[in-house]
Amino acid sequence: MISIVPVEGVPEIKEGDDLAALIAERADLQGWDVLVVAQKVVSKAEGRVVRLVDLEPSDEARRLAAGEDPRRLEVILRESKRIVRTRPPLVIAETRHGFVCASAGVDASNAPEPETVVLLPDDPDASASRLRERLRELTGAEIGVIVSDSFGRPWRQGTTDVAIGVSGVRPLLDLKGERDAAGYELHATVIAVADELAAAAELVFGKTSGIPAAVIRGAAFAGEGSARDLLMPAERDLFR
Amino acid sequence: MISIVPVEGVPEIKEGDDLAALIAERADLQGWDVLVVAQKVVSKAEGRVVRLVDLEPSDEARRLAAGEDPRRLEVILRESKRIVRTRPPLVIAETRHGFVCASAGVDASNAPEPETVVLLPDDPDASASRLRERLRELTGAEIGVIVSDSFGRPWRQGTTDVAIGVSGVRPLLDLKGERDAAGYELHATVIAVADELAAAAELVFGKTSGIPAAVIRGAAFAGEGSARDLLMPAERDLFR
Repeated sequence: MISIVPVEGVPEIKEGDDLAALIAERADLQGWDVLVVAQKVVSKAEGRVVRLVDLEPSDEARRLAAGEDPRRLEVILRESKRIVRTRPPLVIAETRHGFVCASAGVDASNAPEPETVVLLPDDPDASASRLRERLRELTGAEIGVIVSDSFGRPWRQGTTDVAIGVSGVRPLLDLKGERDAAGYELHATVIAVADELAAAAELVFGKTSGIPAAVIRGAAFAGEGSARDLLMPAERDLFR
Repeated sequence: MISIVPVEGVPEIKEGDDLAALIAERADLQGWDVLVVAQKVVSKAEGRVVRLVDLEPSDEARRLAAGEDPRRLEVILRESKRIVRTRPPLVIAETRHGFVCASAGVDASNAPEPETVVLLPDDPDASASRLRERLRELTGAEIGVIVSDSFGRPWRQGTTDVAIGVSGVRPLLDLKGERDAAGYELHATVIAVADELAAAAELVFGKTSGIPAAVIRGAAFAGEGSARDLLMPAERDLFR
């Protein structure tokens, strides 16, 4: 059995907050648990917030804004390594980390104040790793940590949460070479368990009720890896 | 809190089996639970199995096979409404239902015998609905049912389970117009909760240990809808 318990009562996060401590006070963490933390609070604690007032939008940002705030588009362009698709003001971009997502992960909702936007963490694996170490220090528990974000998907409506940072969790479960119940070899079965853990946690997040983290117990996916393991290598990608 | 309990000990499924009864005997089902059932066992119970020996592959199937069994490609082409991408023998196709996935959902792993492949259910919403009604009859519990399948994703490695059939579950949670904790209106926040429920269930499935279903308790997403609600309308799809 797997259980997913929301971490309730976490206050609004500001730059410099000890997010791990604020979670540890409110969560029962035991060895082998996986803590999934929403990117937004990780970014806020790390000060990954941009004030739009300081920005001068480029011509391209103005073109893509299509009547919305061109300064937000300017931030998106600065966070992007490659624009994948646009339908102004919608931009699907590859971030510097290699994630392909709407607005290069730049988000105005749940921002700390008006006229600001929140960026993805600079290095979400490192964010997960720091949270994990600090939680080990605070609780003694050896857990896994996933930093999650809500991504849209081609062809399907709605977002699902995926893992953008990972520490102490095996992101992919590779069944290659294992045999199914009938004895036939399973070929290309690689399961993105870190993304499934992120999606499972999102079920208790509640975007409007401000639950930014959840503890997943009973999922046996401890190990090492990086959220980069979840990125399709360009040469295998049919959708670049 | 949400819990996810695997339904263990379900025997190998054959055409005509009363899948709902085989699950009801092995699961504790209560009102508001969501039962997620892997497509493979639903398809097998419905006899959605094709014997390759009966098939004559077309020229296109031979071309796409790239050395693999062209009869399997023939089945994929027959199940497809539109080919989205190919890199033989890999085919990403839109199924007759509108799902975009590898091999149009045609699968040789976990097939009932060699030289057979398993197709998606003809109408997965109807499959979910029949299971739901039969389970209500057997247990008295008013539950939701999701038929799930493992889909790959552009840009990301590995599969995650998604909902291809839904009954008694609200597939999308639309937060449009709701306000976040800071009072700002959330704009385009639609969460694909049925896909997240499917992904959460997959964490206990175990492709090799033959667990074909899981009971999710504590997720408050009862309602009505169709897995078609999860399909991006063509006119909004940037990735056709």
